[in-house]
Amino acid sequence: MSRIAVLMTNMFEDVEYTQPTEAFKKSGHQLILVGLKAGELVKGKKGEATAKIDASVKDVSTSDFDALFIPGGYSPDILRMDENAVKFAGDFVKSGKPVFALCHAAQLLITAQVLRGRKVTGWKSIAQDIKNAGAEYPDQSVVHDGNLISSRGPDDIPDFVEASLNELGA
Amino acid sequence: MSRIAVLMTNMFEDVEYTQPTEAFKKSGHQLILVGLKAGELVKGKKGEATAKIDASVKDVSTSDFDALFIPGGYSPDILRMDENAVKFAGDFVKSGKPVFALCHAAQLLITAQVLRGRKVTGWKSIAQDIKNAGAEYPDQSVVHDGNLISSRGPDDIPDFVEASLNELGA
Repeated sequence: MSRIAVLMTNMFEDVEYTQPTEAFKKSGHQLILVGLKAGELVKGKKGEATAKIDASVKDVSTSDFDALFIPGGYSPDILRMDENAVKFAGDFVKSGKPVFALCHAAQLLITAQVLRGRKVTGWKSIAQDIKNAGAEYPDQSVVHDGNLISSRGPDDIPDFVEASLNELGA
Repeated sequence: MSRIAVLMTNMFEDVEYTQPTEAFKKSGHQLILVGLKAGELVKGKKGEATAKIDASVKDVSTSDFDALFIPGGYSPDILRMDENAVKFAGDFVKSGKPVFALCHAAQLLITAQVLRGRKVTGWKSIAQDIKNAGAEYPDQSVVHDGNLISSRGPDDIPDFVEASLNELGA
C-alpha cells in the first residue's frame, strides 16, 4: 500500500482524475488530495467531477508520501503559478519517488525546471514547451523514464494506470 | 483603418476578446474573426461572450490583413495544436506586421518557434515557457518589441489597447 499525493485544483480534466484514482484505490493504495487550500471543493473543467482537497500544498512535503500523481486539464496551468505547488512537484521529481504526470501535468514540472535531460510526454499542445525545457518528447501512450511516468491524455489512461501500478508494485 | 485578424477559438478569456475588439472597432478598424472553422460559434471560458468565426485559418494568409490580435484564456492552448493556426501566427510575426498577443497568446508563438531573441510578456503561468523559448519575459503590463506587442492579462487591457492603437496609427 502506497500513500499517493494527488496534486490538483479547479479545471482538472475530469476523467484524468476519476479513472486513475479509482484504479489506484482498487489496488489498495491510499490517496491524499493536495491542492491550494485544505477543505476546498474543486471542480473538473467538464463539470462532471468534483473533489475535496485534503491538504494544502504549503503544509506537505515529499516525505509525507510514497508517490505523486498530477492529473491534467487546466489545473496544472493554475498550480504552476503557486510557488509551493511548483516546489512540491519539483522536489518529488528530484526525490526519486514515483511521479505520474498525465496530459498537461508536465507544465508544472517545466516551471519547476526539473525536466532537462528527461524523457516526458504530455498533451500535444505542450510538446514544444517540453522540448524547450530540455526534455525529449516521445509521442507515445506512456513514457517511463526513471521515476517519471507520463502519458498524453484521456485515451492513454489504461496504459498510464498499468505503468503506474507496476511502478508502485516494484 | 486597418484590417485586423482576431485569431481565436473556444475557451478564450471573455474580456480579453470583448474589450480590445470594442476599442479597435471604436477607432475605426475592421475586425475579421479567424478560427478553426468558418461560421462556428465559439464561447468564452467564463460563458459571458460568444463570437462567430468569419474565416477558417486554413483559408487565410498574412497578406489578407494589416495586423493580428490573439486573445488569451485557453483558446491558444487549443489553437497551437492546429498546424494552420501555428503557421499563420508564425508567418505574421515574421512578416513584420503588428502582432498583439494577450495573456496565453504567446503559447501559439512558442509552438511557431518565432520568439527566440524577442521580448514578450504573458500570463504568469507561461513565464517559464516564454523564457525556455529563448525570449526575455519582462513582468510589465505591456511589452513593445518591434512588431510584437504583448500584455500579461485582463488587468493590462487598457495599456495593451493603447499600445496596439498607437502601433496601428504609426
